[in-house]
Amino acid sequence: MPDDLLIRPATPNDVPTILALIRELAEYEKLPDQVEATEALLHDALFGDRPSAEALMAMYGPNGGEGEESKVAGYALFFHNFSTWVGRKGLYLEDIYVRPQFRGKGIGRALLSALAKIARERNCGRMEWSVLDWNESAIGFYRSLGAELMEGWTICRLGENDFRKL
Amino acid sequence: MPDDLLIRPATPNDVPTILALIRELAEYEKLPDQVEATEALLHDALFGDRPSAEALMAMYGPNGGEGEESKVAGYALFFHNFSTWVGRKGLYLEDIYVRPQFRGKGIGRALLSALAKIARERNCGRMEWSVLDWNESAIGFYRSLGAELMEGWTICRLGENDFRKL
Repeated sequence: MPDDLLIRPATPNDVPTILALIRELAEYEKLPDQVEATEALLHDALFGDRPSAEALMAMYGPNGGEGEESKVAGYALFFHNFSTWVGRKGLYLEDIYVRPQFRGKGIGRALLSALAKIARERNCGRMEWSVLDWNESAIGFYRSLGAELMEGWTICRLGENDFRKL
Repeated sequence: MPDDLLIRPATPNDVPTILALIRELAEYEKLPDQVEATEALLHDALFGDRPSAEALMAMYGPNGGEGEESKVAGYALFFHNFSTWVGRKGLYLEDIYVRPQFRGKGIGRALLSALAKIARERNCGRMEWSVLDWNESAIGFYRSLGAELMEGWTICRLGENDFRKL
């Protein structure tokens, strides 16, 4: 892990920053209009009575990222899924993002490594996430870590209006 | 919903049947060697202290599927995921399966309809599941319900041995 980096769990104070990062990631993915999340929804999801996701923050700066001048370099947001084949829960990484000015410092790898540690501690059978097919640099990076691309499967999605009809 | 059909939540007594159905589904998907789940793991996942998934059973037979002679026609197994874009949890359908001798009776649709009801009651923003690209009949059925196929995204998977290395 880089010397100037701290990976720590998100706190309620991070919610506005996480929402800003979600928007930056959606811009990067060329899908900025998709973001309907608000601070209140995100706060509830991460820190409400029954959280449905968790987040890690990557802080970069002096004193191993712990100084007041440290900057938010990126984040990861995840939840637990379940595989009937494995018979155990897994860790599903919904978002991982490193801001452009902090790339090339090993921060993405450090975030994935912190997630792998959580997956191991919680006895998960797998880690999974989705990648856009045009994002060749990300695909190459994930393959270099040993990830397998699950070609041959496609996600089906039913929006709220359609499942109300069903 | 067909007259002879009952959709009900699974109980601990269903665990051996669910495991048998998971194996039948894996056979149908031409991936029978993938099933590592055991009754103990499944019991823990569905009915342990901190459940990671839930299941519905489709029972078919006299008296609206409630009679003792009713047979298990299929099942659905799901958990909650989370979308940062929507800012709300969703319902992820890990498995849906109708045994061959019970097909063509509207049981798959009844299971999906029961899941949509749960998604609505729990204020989910989406329902999602995966389909094998060769399964044209399933894809046609899902599209007829209004489902969108998320082409352009691929799942990356890191197995336990690889994340231990990270």
